[in-house]
Amino acid sequence: MNISKAHPRFLSLSIRERLANAVKDGIMVPEGLIAHGRAEAFDYLLGEKTTFAASKATLAATALLLTAEYPVLSVNGNTAALVGREIIRLSHMLSAPIEVNLFHRTRQREHVIAQYLKRLGAREILGTREGAKMTIWGIASPRREADPRGIGRADTVLIPLEDGDRAEALERAGKRVIAIDLNPLSRTSQAATITLVDNVVRAVPGLIKAATRVRSLPRRKLVTIIENFDNEENLAITIQEMIGYLRGWATD
Amino acid sequence: MNISKAHPRFLSLSIRERLANAVKDGIMVPEGLIAHGRAEAFDYLLGEKTTFAASKATLAATALLLTAEYPVLSVNGNTAALVGREIIRLSHMLSAPIEVNLFHRTRQREHVIAQYLKRLGAREILGTREGAKMTIWGIASPRREADPRGIGRADTVLIPLEDGDRAEALERAGKRVIAIDLNPLSRTSQAATITLVDNVVRAVPGLIKAATRVRSLPRRKLVTIIENFDNEENLAITIQEMIGYLRGWATD
Repeated sequence: MNISKAHPRFLSLSIRERLANAVKDGIMVPEGLIAHGRAEAFDYLLGEKTTFAASKATLAATALLLTAEYPVLSVNGNTAALVGREIIRLSHMLSAPIEVNLFHRTRQREHVIAQYLKRLGAREILGTREGAKMTIWGIASPRREADPRGIGRADTVLIPLEDGDRAEALERAGKRVIAIDLNPLSRTSQAATITLVDNVVRAVPGLIKAATRVRSLPRRKLVTIIENFDNEENLAITIQEMIGYLRGWATD
Repeated sequence: MNISKAHPRFLSLSIRERLANAVKDGIMVPEGLIAHGRAEAFDYLLGEKTTFAASKATLAATALLLTAEYPVLSVNGNTAALVGREIIRLSHMLSAPIEVNLFHRTRQREHVIAQYLKRLGAREILGTREGAKMTIWGIASPRREADPRGIGRADTVLIPLEDGDRAEALERAGKRVIAIDLNPLSRTSQAATITLVDNVVRAVPGLIKAATRVRSLPRRKLVTIIENFDNEENLAITIQEMIGYLRGWATD
């Protein structure tokens, strides 16, 4: 398909094409395309932009990552395909390891994703070593597996495009969880310590920008940013923004 | 793949698996999975149930199909995969032919879908005969093609999971259009004569049930049902229901 750059839907059409290719390359599973469609619909209800509430969550998440003892960035197929390069950059900035964690898990796909990220410049990818995995309790999918050198010992985990089961289980395991999820009603969004209700292609660059801006702040300032952030309130504001968008249509 | 039955989203996960298989079988294209994801998100905002407004639209659509001179049921890959069997049953009840019409069209895929529907019990599938196609004006995709024995001469067309271009063009061509579309804001929903904002896996069985119930009614009663239905108002009510759902969350 030939899409003109002038097309008003150029960005989302070219992202779709990129994802279809990621399925062909074995980075993504077909189910990942369905998840992307769900995200598209919610993004549509946010006017496809980073809201004020999302910016606030991004700043608080950055402070959480910068003050963490051992932060880990979790990556699945969609995340690798959409923002692989940016996750690697964030990983370098934070000295935070990257761990592959898949819902539709095969050794083969773990390997393909790790190789892909290494080609993009990642030094090491955790979560792919056979026989060196531990289990996070209460997860009804292969996502229960964690690398003891990564998510297993992390105090803070970034989980872009996650399922609710693992978000809840990671919280129960006492970890601080940063979710990136366009559905503010999802179990993931509700369970996380901080939720970025934003498109991952805007959210991860947003984290990089925020980290550049605040990483030299004294620790107590970062802690204040975290303490002043209320995830529940922030999600409620996001839902209000969606309501406003729908109401605009209903009264047209 | 092993999805635990304990997973709270088991039902929608198994539908997703079915669609992934339909892609492997050549019935669906990968882009169809993204479209399904968008639909899932909107269904979620309706509480994943048939709303009162959707039931009202279903009844009016049934009356429209029963009073039509020549109704045709249009089928694409997603529709075949999700409700192939039910579309065939509806086709028999209404004596309405089924026509394959694809956005991502290849002769191969038309053939695969027609064979699939025939295996499920369809007698004939229109829209697949080379060199016997006419064009609906104003459609910027292969969906412009229509079978002169089917949609070409139809006065009423059921278009589940349609794109906005064709919905508008069919209306302009003077046909009465019944859309099934979970996004009440879409061009398809806005352009159709009657829009069922409902999941196709509930909407098509709903049409079958309604047809069983009202097909023996006198024609003037069916006409009254149609006349009392206002699509614009019904869509506004649906958007209000989504707002209500979101508001319920925002104030939890």
